[in-house]
Amino acid sequence: MTSDRTAPAVPVPAFEPPYYVAVFTTVRTPDQDGYRETDDRMEELVKEVPGYLGMDHAQTPGGLGITVGYFRDAEALARWRGDAEHRAAQKRGRAQWYETYTLHVAKVERSHGFTRAQAPGVRDDGETA
Amino acid sequence: MTSDRTAPAVPVPAFEPPYYVAVFTTVRTPDQDGYRETDDRMEELVKEVPGYLGMDHAQTPGGLGITVGYFRDAEALARWRGDAEHRAAQKRGRAQWYETYTLHVAKVERSHGFTRAQAPGVRDDGETA
Repeated sequence: MTSDRTAPAVPVPAFEPPYYVAVFTTVRTPDQDGYRETDDRMEELVKEVPGYLGMDHAQTPGGLGITVGYFRDAEALARWRGDAEHRAAQKRGRAQWYETYTLHVAKVERSHGFTRAQAPGVRDDGETA
Repeated sequence: MTSDRTAPAVPVPAFEPPYYVAVFTTVRTPDQDGYRETDDRMEELVKEVPGYLGMDHAQTPGGLGITVGYFRDAEALARWRGDAEHRAAQKRGRAQWYETYTLHVAKVERSHGFTRAQAPGVRDDGETA
């Protein structure tokens, strides 16, 4: 889910609440033909949605995948949800790529970030709200 | 994050909203001494919290880890957040195991599950709320 797959992983930071998360947990089928191309295309598309804030993705090999999308408000999410190309990709996902998935859409009430201090302490330990 | 690590991965299902998710995204340090034991202990402990609903975990090797905890209400989350042993583990995490992390605590407004039909169609495609 990152365009530069060799870049070090960095989680999306905490934003000032409220904002929205879409938590998408998946187990994939053995047939992943076309998945990568569609995934790349979806990443391109979602970036065009006003209010899109970022995305985190982790995949346990042979196990669970979790994608978390961050959106400024319900309108941004609704726009992404209604995107025709996105809907076509979801349909193909159910037909081919996903064994099972769950989607949880939630409004963030509290967020918090931590980054290890480098030598002369750059640290972000502030909690919002 | 599963007690039987050889069991097939199954995402936590959608619950009837409202409920809470705690989305914890991490990049770990090279020093993971003691992590596994503490992680196992936390999994034991959180199961004792009334209103705890489940947990999903995915880890990209050498990359991002995402843990999502599900809780029935804010009280359940507050109880877990205040657990003394949990707080000690968080402190050790900041000192040793985590390069960087973000926590997003959010109230679920909408959820949805899909499971591929087995031969004579067992399918869960219902959206709540």
